[in-house]
Amino acid sequence: MAHETPFSAWKRTTTCGALRATDAGKEVILNGWVHRKRDHGGIHFINLRDRYGITQVVVDEESPEEVRRLVEALKYEYCIAVKGVVRLRPETMRNPQMPTGDIEVLATGIRPLSASEPLPFPIDDAIDAREELRLQYRYLDLRRPRMQRNLTLRHLVAWHAREYLVGKGFYEIETPTFIRSTPEGARDFLVPARLHPGRFYALPQSPQLFKQLLMVAGFDKYFQIARCYRDEDARGDRQPEFTQIDMEMSFVTQDDVLAETEGLMAHIFQKALGVDLSLPFPRLTYEEALDRYGTDKPDLRYGLELKDFTLHVDKGSFQAFQKVVAQGGVVKALVVEGGASFSRKEIEALEEVAKTYRAAGLAWMKVTEGGLEGGVGKFYQEAAPALITSLGARPGDLILLVGDTWKTACTALGAVRTAVARTRGLIPEGAFSFCWVVDFPMFEWNEEERKWDPAHHMFTMPREEHLPLLEKDPGAVKAAAYDLVCNGYELASGSLRIHDPELQRRIFKVVGFSEAEAASRFGFLTTAFKYGPPPHGGIAPGLDRLVMIMAGEETIREVIAFPKTAAGLSPLDGSPAEVDPAQLEELHLRVVLPEED
Amino acid sequence: MAHETPFSAWKRTTTCGALRATDAGKEVILNGWVHRKRDHGGIHFINLRDRYGITQVVVDEESPEEVRRLVEALKYEYCIAVKGVVRLRPETMRNPQMPTGDIEVLATGIRPLSASEPLPFPIDDAIDAREELRLQYRYLDLRRPRMQRNLTLRHLVAWHAREYLVGKGFYEIETPTFIRSTPEGARDFLVPARLHPGRFYALPQSPQLFKQLLMVAGFDKYFQIARCYRDEDARGDRQPEFTQIDMEMSFVTQDDVLAETEGLMAHIFQKALGVDLSLPFPRLTYEEALDRYGTDKPDLRYGLELKDFTLHVDKGSFQAFQKVVAQGGVVKALVVEGGASFSRKEIEALEEVAKTYRAAGLAWMKVTEGGLEGGVGKFYQEAAPALITSLGARPGDLILLVGDTWKTACTALGAVRTAVARTRGLIPEGAFSFCWVVDFPMFEWNEEERKWDPAHHMFTMPREEHLPLLEKDPGAVKAAAYDLVCNGYELASGSLRIHDPELQRRIFKVVGFSEAEAASRFGFLTTAFKYGPPPHGGIAPGLDRLVMIMAGEETIREVIAFPKTAAGLSPLDGSPAEVDPAQLEELHLRVVLPEED
Repeated sequence: MAHETPFSAWKRTTTCGALRATDAGKEVILNGWVHRKRDHGGIHFINLRDRYGITQVVVDEESPEEVRRLVEALKYEYCIAVKGVVRLRPETMRNPQMPTGDIEVLATGIRPLSASEPLPFPIDDAIDAREELRLQYRYLDLRRPRMQRNLTLRHLVAWHAREYLVGKGFYEIETPTFIRSTPEGARDFLVPARLHPGRFYALPQSPQLFKQLLMVAGFDKYFQIARCYRDEDARGDRQPEFTQIDMEMSFVTQDDVLAETEGLMAHIFQKALGVDLSLPFPRLTYEEALDRYGTDKPDLRYGLELKDFTLHVDKGSFQAFQKVVAQGGVVKALVVEGGASFSRKEIEALEEVAKTYRAAGLAWMKVTEGGLEGGVGKFYQEAAPALITSLGARPGDLILLVGDTWKTACTALGAVRTAVARTRGLIPEGAFSFCWVVDFPMFEWNEEERKWDPAHHMFTMPREEHLPLLEKDPGAVKAAAYDLVCNGYELASGSLRIHDPELQRRIFKVVGFSEAEAASRFGFLTTAFKYGPPPHGGIAPGLDRLVMIMAGEETIREVIAFPKTAAGLSPLDGSPAEVDPAQLEELHLRVVLPEED
Repeated sequence: MAHETPFSAWKRTTTCGALRATDAGKEVILNGWVHRKRDHGGIHFINLRDRYGITQVVVDEESPEEVRRLVEALKYEYCIAVKGVVRLRPETMRNPQMPTGDIEVLATGIRPLSASEPLPFPIDDAIDAREELRLQYRYLDLRRPRMQRNLTLRHLVAWHAREYLVGKGFYEIETPTFIRSTPEGARDFLVPARLHPGRFYALPQSPQLFKQLLMVAGFDKYFQIARCYRDEDARGDRQPEFTQIDMEMSFVTQDDVLAETEGLMAHIFQKALGVDLSLPFPRLTYEEALDRYGTDKPDLRYGLELKDFTLHVDKGSFQAFQKVVAQGGVVKALVVEGGASFSRKEIEALEEVAKTYRAAGLAWMKVTEGGLEGGVGKFYQEAAPALITSLGARPGDLILLVGDTWKTACTALGAVRTAVARTRGLIPEGAFSFCWVVDFPMFEWNEEERKWDPAHHMFTMPREEHLPLLEKDPGAVKAAAYDLVCNGYELASGSLRIHDPELQRRIFKVVGFSEAEAASRFGFLTTAFKYGPPPHGGIAPGLDRLVMIMAGEETIREVIAFPKTAAGLSPLDGSPAEVDPAQLEELHLRVVLPEED
């Protein structure tokens, strides 16, 4: 590009989204990208695009000779400056879909600011480029309206989250990202410390310990939109680094944390999306969630609740169910409205889903005007009317049944519920259904190591009334732990924390943590708790997932500016990459590749 | 601690900073820490502290028996809940220094929430604990009013920075912290990629490349309060991780970036400190800054400008100066008001400063009613009156002189200027003096490798009018680069960036970067610049340093919640630390300690 005059002479006086009919007659300079260009009988139309919108630029016989020559050379995505005069479009050419659709700018000068080679894919939402190509040219992918919208939304969500929390007296305090490795849960990413050969920093999986120290320090209400790191295997929709809205509060009860989080969500949805959430969110205990929806992440955008069928087992002669119940198990039922039209194949597909979740099988029967038909219907002929009424079923419905232990029966039929909702299109577009799941179990039985593991984390407070059960019956102890669920996604997880060193010691003991182990890993936290820690608790909504749900996207990669692939690779900059041998030498490290092991 | 009743029954109804005379008679619950406790003839006074203030709690003969018993057991920093009634203090006991000084709370109930062991140091600003001890018990150190104030200020600075930038249409966009290592400038911290044996991510020294990609993506105005990482040797006031207010703008001139930054600073100082900055900030070219203040980070809180003495050298007979000038050097003068009273020892100390900055020596003479005396005064007897007038000196002043190459003379005398200002107490308390330093040289001569290095960074735009000099005379080329300086600290550094691939290639060539090297390190940026990049530029004020200056602190460690020591250690959690051999094995790494090398 030639630089005859400095850029300052061509700097925009307005954006591509601003001009309206009332601006007609004004002289303006626009800067932007050639989004579309077309030629109608010697008249050139350029759709000039910037972050703020699109303005139609016209080069016609009134434009100077030089401009008419220059416009020929412009290609898609050239970055240009345009001088011109705003004029009303002819009545028939107005475009009410475009905010600037009443006007166009007649070009009196054009200056190319930079050229563009042919694009790997068009700047258009309707592309079918492979994700790897999109990520390699992410700066082009991000020019697409959908990605501009997603990152704008993410910006707004973070901003309004801060607005709410600052207004509520929270301080944003930065916690370190170079910390001590405390291996448990997921793997830590490590950072070799060059100045201390053989020693490593770890990147935090969350600011958990440090936010608790900030409560000990008396900061009362803390938050941080914090980057977190987990070195997990590539599966599902995971990223090695992710962001959470990390919160902690002193002198609070569980209800306080829940109410503050609800206020935060309502504020974000109102300000960033214009959506009014209805508060408070419904609360389900962990048991209730599992019992009614077969999952601790229930999607409440639709009904389709699981029903109890155990009480009907005796009324029929299906022996498999009778056996299950005799062994202490349960039978759960799902009534699918209009499901009698399901084909055998469709039912078999649902059975596969149930089996994936460890059910032995999926029984079924169809409701007709006359009673129950097909599948296990024949075993329940006599009880049919009472049974149909009790389940709230109607002719044309399908009844799906799983008999197993309570947890397996619920979980398997819950997965069937989700599959039915998806395939039958029961999920309303654009709906946001929140709920709380509370009273999680404090411990989970680790069959492999034959010990109790913490279900949430080591610092979670048991429910006060369950403290006496701690050693006697760990499996019966519920935690003051809560999950925020939206549309079937876990959006946030939190708990009240232990602030009593003695209670913390009891917990370490239950999960089989020796004093020495506890001291070496969490010693600095337990030491801190010797100096007047306040009662405290917190929660941490995941920002990536929140924005993903709000944007209606299927993966968090669509709402992260520069994500990695599922395998943790960046096609954009080629990271991770091999490094200079000198760098490793300085770090006192040697790579031992698997084949050399 | 016993837990007879749930905490919810003891949850605060107000804070320790809220109660006033008008609240007298109210029943309240307070939660907080025992800050002070004293016993006056059987009446106990507790200063109860939380983030919001201090309230005096009284336990006297009106308090229930149980409370009078409990209060005996309370020690400093116990966390407690107090139920009581607000009452006016007796007239003579009111404390106008305390916002809550008109009232006290008569305790009707006390519940200890947690106990405290004896403290390693008192919760008091007047402590002389070693920094290492303070960092080990940082959660206690952070309870001190000064640290509460510093972190509160940091929170406000970050918040109001965002408030300003969001109001100006900037989007906050997160850039990745796992990127490709592009070794240059400081060392990168590396993160081994477990899933990709032998490959590493690097942590970003700044979001530089990614914010430029966001401009290519059309985001127009970007900011991020971003964590950055530099693996530097332990010297000065450095931290392995630090935070900057990272900004980038498209379609702008240098003046636009400067004006936006000035607006940002004015907003932050007004909102967070109540200080009105006067805009615009003075602008000095790099040469002017060096010539007048002997540094590119001039402290403008005081005058004491360097003067030119070269033109006077001929008027006297001091041969050393004549020789310097004959060889193309200069002589710079510093007039110290009232400095004639300096002792020989004080002048020798200043000479040491000058020598540290490579000056051969520091000449001096004193101004008396009769003329010039002492030091080199005898060489300038004849010209004394004219010389004194020209330098603006007065009887009682001291004239300090350095003759050398221009840069060395300025730099050495600049260091003397700083030393004089400090020792003579010329620096006003609580003043904030900003200035811009502009027109930095584009390249620096690397004598060791006998090549030109980029003075700012590889992507800095040369000043448009100097483009023809690029290959002919790199040393003469000025950059569109600018530093924001406050009180002698570099607070921010920025530049307009190159957006022309051809120009970028020319720069790579001048600094001796081969095509292959450029492609392997920055290929993804130069590729991006093939697709219509906009003109753009940015700046990045350092948050740590900004808050340090605003708080009147001497080190950034005082404004970071959990800093490392100068050696990069954390006495709090013991990081960096050795890790499980299993962790290293999974990363395919072996530590090779120095002695094994």
